[in-house]
Amino acid sequence: MEDGFKVVSIIGVGLIGGSLALALKQRNLTNKIIGYGRNEERLKEALKLGIIDSYTTEIREASQAELIVLATPTSVFERIINEMLQFLKNGTIIIDVGSVKESIVNTFERILPKGILFVGTHPIAGSDKTGFENAKGDLFKNARVIITPTENTDKTALEKVSKLWQQIGAQVEFMTAEFHDKIYALVSHLPHLISFCMVNTVADINKNFIKYAGTGFKDSTRIAKSSAEVWRDIFIMNDKNIFQCLEVFTENLERIKKILSQKDLEGVNQFIEKANKLRQEID
Amino acid sequence: MEDGFKVVSIIGVGLIGGSLALALKQRNLTNKIIGYGRNEERLKEALKLGIIDSYTTEIREASQAELIVLATPTSVFERIINEMLQFLKNGTIIIDVGSVKESIVNTFERILPKGILFVGTHPIAGSDKTGFENAKGDLFKNARVIITPTENTDKTALEKVSKLWQQIGAQVEFMTAEFHDKIYALVSHLPHLISFCMVNTVADINKNFIKYAGTGFKDSTRIAKSSAEVWRDIFIMNDKNIFQCLEVFTENLERIKKILSQKDLEGVNQFIEKANKLRQEID
Repeated sequence: MEDGFKVVSIIGVGLIGGSLALALKQRNLTNKIIGYGRNEERLKEALKLGIIDSYTTEIREASQAELIVLATPTSVFERIINEMLQFLKNGTIIIDVGSVKESIVNTFERILPKGILFVGTHPIAGSDKTGFENAKGDLFKNARVIITPTENTDKTALEKVSKLWQQIGAQVEFMTAEFHDKIYALVSHLPHLISFCMVNTVADINKNFIKYAGTGFKDSTRIAKSSAEVWRDIFIMNDKNIFQCLEVFTENLERIKKILSQKDLEGVNQFIEKANKLRQEID
Repeated sequence: MEDGFKVVSIIGVGLIGGSLALALKQRNLTNKIIGYGRNEERLKEALKLGIIDSYTTEIREASQAELIVLATPTSVFERIINEMLQFLKNGTIIIDVGSVKESIVNTFERILPKGILFVGTHPIAGSDKTGFENAKGDLFKNARVIITPTENTDKTALEKVSKLWQQIGAQVEFMTAEFHDKIYALVSHLPHLISFCMVNTVADINKNFIKYAGTGFKDSTRIAKSSAEVWRDIFIMNDKNIFQCLEVFTENLERIKKILSQKDLEGVNQFIEKANKLRQEID
């Protein structure tokens, strides 16, 4: 091992935490991965599958690594860091992999003492699948990873963290946490919110109708299977940006409703073609 | 050929019309497939690919088949049938493959003279892909096909049409056109409408953000690539049912917005888990 970190603690060994553990081991970027979690049985299982090298439910032990990765639902971050504070060694690097950045980055900068080096990161590699059973060592290959440094971010830590993500195949991009949250409110958080609403609309009208769903419904609501724990936190932590997007979405609903009420064929056509055009750009 | 129809006219040789043509030929359920359309170049191409056996842009010629399949955008059906009327032979069976049924079935029953036998059908096998280039002979294998007979539907024609769909692998199910339109407003038309609105929301806020979209966004908006021509007609012909679904959808948006505003973690959790549970039923 030339690069990397001797010991890495993964706090929350799920899909993302587990995949990162596998990727680091496969690229020989660490000597030891410690898995930390609340459920010892699950950790034992992850150890048995070779995803982690050891496990602990003791926060003291998890705090001894050179790199600590927070990969639990985001609402737990603050509590965990507060519990870790007394055990952290000077020079320890902490990253998170949460889908919301501004409130997390702000919280960490407020709480963490000088000498503990935090870098906010967001790998765009989620899935409706959860748990380390679905973890893959190549999950981050060609995936975008957004890193959100601030003026307080330690330059050396930032470089080490960026390099680590790149070494496991990710395309690293830097932006402010604020800008990140605006982008992902629109292209990720809102679509999830809408997808949950779509499925609940079926539940409210007649849940038996769902058996008639074709591939269109299935694809467009696949993300409605996503973890409640994870998305609950994202929605609450990025609510203001999501509400702004929701306003424009609601305007679009009103617009198409009006056009349809007027039986305006050409108007409907233009509305759909506008969507066709932009959506085709990302194929 | 024991079963089937000697000559079949496909009016509109696109994804569905073309796939049906291929399926009928592969199962030896017809001696000849005539493709009818407005664009001769396209018909020549379909002939060259072996999807149809001959083509015509003459409505008279297309009207001579034993089975006529309407597979154009639904708004064109009425005009085409009116043009065909003077040429149709007694005993001719006409089916459509439109995604809306009530208004179509009503129109056909009003227009068609006794002796011309109409059966409304809807194969649940659409795609965002369009055109006969994407046609597949097994598109209807294990696909659901809804057939919507009325008290006026000819029993023999109904039997022949049902058998035809079954012979190419479809799961046939009967229901009223009215009930069909309620179900598909919810599980197909509304999701398409929402998907167009979602992509247009990105267009309105900042279309450059779309490059940050991950698989969640891509899957949930795949149907936003669907044909404007086809979906324009579906929305307008089934607007009342779609509006009813949209009302419940909007209530759900308001509900989650309220829960989020109250930072009600448990409420958000329940909202998401409700969606998780129903969506998991169709995997």
